[in-house]
Amino acid sequence: MPPRQTRITSVMEEIQARIASRVWQPGARLPSVRTLARSRNLSVSTVVEAYERLVAENLIVARPGSGFYVVGPTAPLTLMQSDPTEREIDPLWISRQSLDAGQTALKPGCGWLPESWMYEEGLRRALRSTARGHTPLLTDYSPPAGHPELRQLLTRRLGISGIQIPPQQLMLTESGTQAIDLICRFLLEPGDTVLVDDPCYFNFHALLRAHRAKIVGIPWHSDGPDLQAFDAALRHHRPRLYITNSGIQNPTGATLSPAIAHRLLKLAEAANLVVVEDDIFADLEHSPAPRLAAFDGLERTIAIGSFSKTVSASLRCGFIAARRDWLESLIDLKIATSFSGGGLAAEVLLRVLTDGGYRRHMDALRARLSLAMERAIERLAPLGITPWLIPQAGMFLWCQLPPGIDAESLARECLTNGVILAPGNAFSQSRSAQRFVRFNVSRTDEPHLYHVLEHALHHLCRSNHGADCGER
Amino acid sequence: MPPRQTRITSVMEEIQARIASRVWQPGARLPSVRTLARSRNLSVSTVVEAYERLVAENLIVARPGSGFYVVGPTAPLTLMQSDPTEREIDPLWISRQSLDAGQTALKPGCGWLPESWMYEEGLRRALRSTARGHTPLLTDYSPPAGHPELRQLLTRRLGISGIQIPPQQLMLTESGTQAIDLICRFLLEPGDTVLVDDPCYFNFHALLRAHRAKIVGIPWHSDGPDLQAFDAALRHHRPRLYITNSGIQNPTGATLSPAIAHRLLKLAEAANLVVVEDDIFADLEHSPAPRLAAFDGLERTIAIGSFSKTVSASLRCGFIAARRDWLESLIDLKIATSFSGGGLAAEVLLRVLTDGGYRRHMDALRARLSLAMERAIERLAPLGITPWLIPQAGMFLWCQLPPGIDAESLARECLTNGVILAPGNAFSQSRSAQRFVRFNVSRTDEPHLYHVLEHALHHLCRSNHGADCGER
Repeated sequence: MPPRQTRITSVMEEIQARIASRVWQPGARLPSVRTLARSRNLSVSTVVEAYERLVAENLIVARPGSGFYVVGPTAPLTLMQSDPTEREIDPLWISRQSLDAGQTALKPGCGWLPESWMYEEGLRRALRSTARGHTPLLTDYSPPAGHPELRQLLTRRLGISGIQIPPQQLMLTESGTQAIDLICRFLLEPGDTVLVDDPCYFNFHALLRAHRAKIVGIPWHSDGPDLQAFDAALRHHRPRLYITNSGIQNPTGATLSPAIAHRLLKLAEAANLVVVEDDIFADLEHSPAPRLAAFDGLERTIAIGSFSKTVSASLRCGFIAARRDWLESLIDLKIATSFSGGGLAAEVLLRVLTDGGYRRHMDALRARLSLAMERAIERLAPLGITPWLIPQAGMFLWCQLPPGIDAESLARECLTNGVILAPGNAFSQSRSAQRFVRFNVSRTDEPHLYHVLEHALHHLCRSNHGADCGER
Repeated sequence: MPPRQTRITSVMEEIQARIASRVWQPGARLPSVRTLARSRNLSVSTVVEAYERLVAENLIVARPGSGFYVVGPTAPLTLMQSDPTEREIDPLWISRQSLDAGQTALKPGCGWLPESWMYEEGLRRALRSTARGHTPLLTDYSPPAGHPELRQLLTRRLGISGIQIPPQQLMLTESGTQAIDLICRFLLEPGDTVLVDDPCYFNFHALLRAHRAKIVGIPWHSDGPDLQAFDAALRHHRPRLYITNSGIQNPTGATLSPAIAHRLLKLAEAANLVVVEDDIFADLEHSPAPRLAAFDGLERTIAIGSFSKTVSASLRCGFIAARRDWLESLIDLKIATSFSGGGLAAEVLLRVLTDGGYRRHMDALRARLSLAMERAIERLAPLGITPWLIPQAGMFLWCQLPPGIDAESLARECLTNGVILAPGNAFSQSRSAQRFVRFNVSRTDEPHLYHVLEHALHHLCRSNHGADCGER
């Protein structure tokens, strides 16, 4: 690429990064061509060219006589190109990749278990018995809060992790994601600040963008969020909401320590912050980690979850446990935006969960995951890919790449060979995880994966003199 | 009630109405106590008392030294009380009533068919065969756009109503409501204006409120919207979106004439207006009415639909047919806000729709509805309740009440006797339908319904000297 092209591209990339990280908010005016050219020691024509290409990509708009502006708030989710290899590695990149990929692709970056690991037999049984079920469940709408028996079962399950609530404090949703979406609709104004862990589940970024929220990442350690950074963020940004995982954190696999949980809640209370605790991996834990919701009795914590990771991703059903006064409004919002939930899915799920086989299936699944975790660690080591922490449970392994290797480049390289990785920066609000990759150990058994990785690493080393290839 | 109480209440009601109809937008400052007192010839203390009660109801907030303000945008859906009889008759009133009601309640106001009218046997068959289905469909996520075979089938079905598109222009959603919700997220900024029919499906109001849109109602005639009012609204409000029903309009049962459809699209094009056509009652039509989406080939029209009214409300699955460039962004928004759709529901629906029995079931259902329609008209006549128009098809009958009878009072009266009505103003943005009620003719067979109606009408007549009870 001729030097001028390189300069144009780097200007474009810098601007794209600022828009993606919302340093430049939708609607914000970009620096004038002259200002930017001067500050970057570039020719005006270079900046003009960069701006015009960004206009062509619908990232920014030109207002004649006024300058260039970041496209409006509906845009952040509309920027993305449809060609997977071309597409920006944005929060939705991995989702689209993993969902789009055919059965042949290897998906160590994918966030769920292979079909063969799911509780298939129980699900088939549940479908057959549901087919004989009571008519209203099959054809009619559910009550606003959702299937009563399932809500009772879920409250009993929450009781086990120390969250004692009556069924009136629990509503069903179409999914865990919809649960968070409803909470955002209920609590957030456009422009409100939301705290997330850095790194965190990438779809939190996409969801919060759709709500036009300002996202602030809190560095995440092996025992929970960095409380100093958390405290500082509370002071400087006055956030409305903090969204985190309970139990096994995605992507790191780390769990919250009781001490951090306690201090975090005290800070949240002082700042009148609402905490959303996403409990989606609960059933994968060997021994339950502390739950914020249990500590504060759902005073300012909202617990959400779903069974898409352990029963079926195809069967849509999630839940919200919250203060009763909040729940009423959340139910209204659910009706307004998705009407009534799927009673059929809830009925099937109820039958799966109350089937004695589910517990046995989960015991076997946890054991299988531990084993896969060990094997993955062993087999990644020779490639210089090392775990940031060895998780107590779950399917995720958050790994550091060899020096000089950039995760996005590795992901693009692997994608061309039918391997879908989850590059670190998709999880990182500060985009400081460029040397990290999340592996789903239930999808790391194929020897071919390690060949592709090794080949890609070597290729990147050769093309990158900064990289220390000596390690391998 | 002492006169002062009456005055306080009427001030409160006036303010509530203005907030509900968004004449006063969330965040807007209310007139000062003095100003309002002067303009209404009321004592300052009366207005103060009214304001303070509205503060207690969380409808408005007092900012010391600054005045009273309509509560913020998240509020409109949080105002509502949970006690059904107490609750304001707002857009969600009927939904919550109908969804909450036990099996014993009569629900002529409810918007869907009784379970016994649905295609139960086909659904049970579909569940049994799905239980034997291919594993990924049972446990894995669907591709972003949704179940491929179902999308193909739906595009073929759209083709029959003249909407010729490739499957790439159709995506699945969790429901028809979610379909509209995604479109609003994609196209609307808070404060944007949206046109709806007046009257229209009440949940459009609730959904648009959740998006903080300004809602403008266009008077609806027996052959479509009033084009003069439509044209005027385009000029004065520069709306972004027009949401309407295709085929059978809810609540009136009227259908769009080709002439109106053609002129409407010309106006929409001139004003660069996007039209959302909700096709949810398609399968209830004897002969298909014109589709706006067919006229403009999905240039600026977006077609949506679902099968909750004809197959199962418990099986959540809807769709969006739109321009390909829009669809990509809609898919991103779907992933961000609800991740992947329910492949299982889509698979069951596919099996129901491709089962030869479905067509026969629908033929019988249409005949049954026509018959129920005739009977309902006959039996309502003696009560002085007369149809505004006799629909060609569908389940809804939009009826006018006897002079002096207010639909909300009738609805409250009937609710105390276990009958849930759909009062006209829940459908009317201008709240000008206080003398109308929507009946679902599939739920008007019970003789008890007519006893309750008659009793309630007499009671209201006696307590209302304005009413002309002579008619009956």
